[in-house]
Amino acid sequence: MKNLESLALKRIDGRLKILDQTLLPLKEQWIDIESPDRMVEVIKSLQVRGAPLIGVAAALALAQFVLAGADIEKFRTALQKLRAARPTAVNLMKCLDRMLAAAETKGLLSVVNLADEIFYEDVKLCDKIAENGLAVIAEGDGILTHCNTGGLATAGVGTALGVIAKAFKKGIKIHVFVDETRPLLQGGRLTTWECQKLGIPYTLICDNMAASLMQKKRVQKVIVGADRIAANGDFANKVGTYNLAVLCNYHEIPFYVAAPYTTVDLFTKTGAEIEIEERSSEEVLGVSGSFGQVRWAPLGSVWNPAFDVTPAALVSGWILDQGLYSFADIKKGALCSR
Amino acid sequence: MKNLESLALKRIDGRLKILDQTLLPLKEQWIDIESPDRMVEVIKSLQVRGAPLIGVAAALALAQFVLAGADIEKFRTALQKLRAARPTAVNLMKCLDRMLAAAETKGLLSVVNLADEIFYEDVKLCDKIAENGLAVIAEGDGILTHCNTGGLATAGVGTALGVIAKAFKKGIKIHVFVDETRPLLQGGRLTTWECQKLGIPYTLICDNMAASLMQKKRVQKVIVGADRIAANGDFANKVGTYNLAVLCNYHEIPFYVAAPYTTVDLFTKTGAEIEIEERSSEEVLGVSGSFGQVRWAPLGSVWNPAFDVTPAALVSGWILDQGLYSFADIKKGALCSR
Repeated sequence: MKNLESLALKRIDGRLKILDQTLLPLKEQWIDIESPDRMVEVIKSLQVRGAPLIGVAAALALAQFVLAGADIEKFRTALQKLRAARPTAVNLMKCLDRMLAAAETKGLLSVVNLADEIFYEDVKLCDKIAENGLAVIAEGDGILTHCNTGGLATAGVGTALGVIAKAFKKGIKIHVFVDETRPLLQGGRLTTWECQKLGIPYTLICDNMAASLMQKKRVQKVIVGADRIAANGDFANKVGTYNLAVLCNYHEIPFYVAAPYTTVDLFTKTGAEIEIEERSSEEVLGVSGSFGQVRWAPLGSVWNPAFDVTPAALVSGWILDQGLYSFADIKKGALCSR
Repeated sequence: MKNLESLALKRIDGRLKILDQTLLPLKEQWIDIESPDRMVEVIKSLQVRGAPLIGVAAALALAQFVLAGADIEKFRTALQKLRAARPTAVNLMKCLDRMLAAAETKGLLSVVNLADEIFYEDVKLCDKIAENGLAVIAEGDGILTHCNTGGLATAGVGTALGVIAKAFKKGIKIHVFVDETRPLLQGGRLTTWECQKLGIPYTLICDNMAASLMQKKRVQKVIVGADRIAANGDFANKVGTYNLAVLCNYHEIPFYVAAPYTTVDLFTKTGAEIEIEERSSEEVLGVSGSFGQVRWAPLGSVWNPAFDVTPAALVSGWILDQGLYSFADIKKGALCSR
């Protein structure tokens, strides 16, 4: 069994490990994943996160389960639990569908190789997305991004942050503005950490400062990731994404979404059909992580949707592994072509 | 010497006290203000805050200084330091100008009564703003507000939150959505606390969720306060306000600013002339208060403007103590009429 290694997931001597992203940037601590149930836990707690990465991680956990002797019934039960762990992320559903189909048609052991394939596929998808995204980046761009969409969110270089990293490596002079991304601070904790690792110049802001930054013409592009793209091009992503799309519309700033084809869900016709996970009010009443835990707001009513939906009409371009698509392309069915 | 009492400032037996707003909502602790220098400290640290309130507080601190025997030179020096404590808030400048003019034309002791007048004036201004704002509130409204603009920010019932409280007391069924207002969380800490004290139903959200809330048609009005209103109607307010104005524009939701005439600065022709205070990067790298102190982001570049500027064209109405004005009124010089 080959070793696998990405920024936040590895398999060493057959043992699956997840980098605990709730502990970043203060601590780099790896969690041993002994079972699919344990993987469900770390997905729910966001210790592993990023729509592409959790699909890969779930597949690898199932493969390990099969190697440990699980039969088809146990495999199916584990797979159903993984499916329910993060309902908004379509990549997870797709990976699990492939794993189930393989188990049922080619035999249970076939999922072991399939999980590895899914890992390498994601690496390649990221590379292609980054390559296709280069077309939208210009010398001197200020690029605003939201949440974390880099190597921590995928098995490869990332989606939106992958495009940015690729441009930076090519020597294009850019500056990244990082939305801190309340409530879970994936921007403040993770994207800053990745930018520092990669040496990319960045500036951290609170989410509500993006508008003012655009007003001052310091943002030339916004690039974000996606958790699910509907057939009409609408997409769900970390809450706050739709806010940026509206701001870009007003300030006439191009707004791009970067994702692999596995994020496209043709069974979802429009964004209105996307189920949005609502999370604990504790997350909004304060913050919690390896850095400590504080609560500043009095107990009371809170609204805490994990995602929001951006309508296709606000998107300047879809940066996918297959290519860079305009709204006109999407209307002509570009997302259905694969 | 009469006792004075508001939600966050009081003078009991001649001793001036400030409710430490950095400790709310966990602790209600009053700070004795023995000198204008001490008032400068508590303004800078945001222990006292709210554009109208700091004007009142500064005037009262100077009055106390005069009663303690300060001469005109010491008075002037103290006044200059207070002026520099919060450059964006024009109310502070105006109160200090009045105090200085009185000292120079009517004698130093005249500032003692003037400071009391300024206190009572602010109470009345709030009442008038609230009365004028009633016209924009309808039964069943979801009203989104930003930062804190209630009894904690003024000597009276508040500005934007004063309008909301007035409507609630009149029996109009409303629901308040409270932007947490990063980085200093005045919404999450203070507006929630005030809503609870007043019994007003509210829901706390992170700033980046407002767009999604509007998309779901749960917001019928946005009302915010102001730190400075320029002659053309542009205004500066807590960072994130301009974001809301753009969101309202896109979603066709009325956007109101509520403030006393003391916030209008006719010497500032447009918003472009308003000086925006930038604060410490520490505030964005984490949070800090009586609830504890944590830092989640790695040390690095941060942008932390305390305010942003909303252009008049995005404002549906200016709710002032003199009346409710439209953009057309402002263009005709309504702000210059007092």
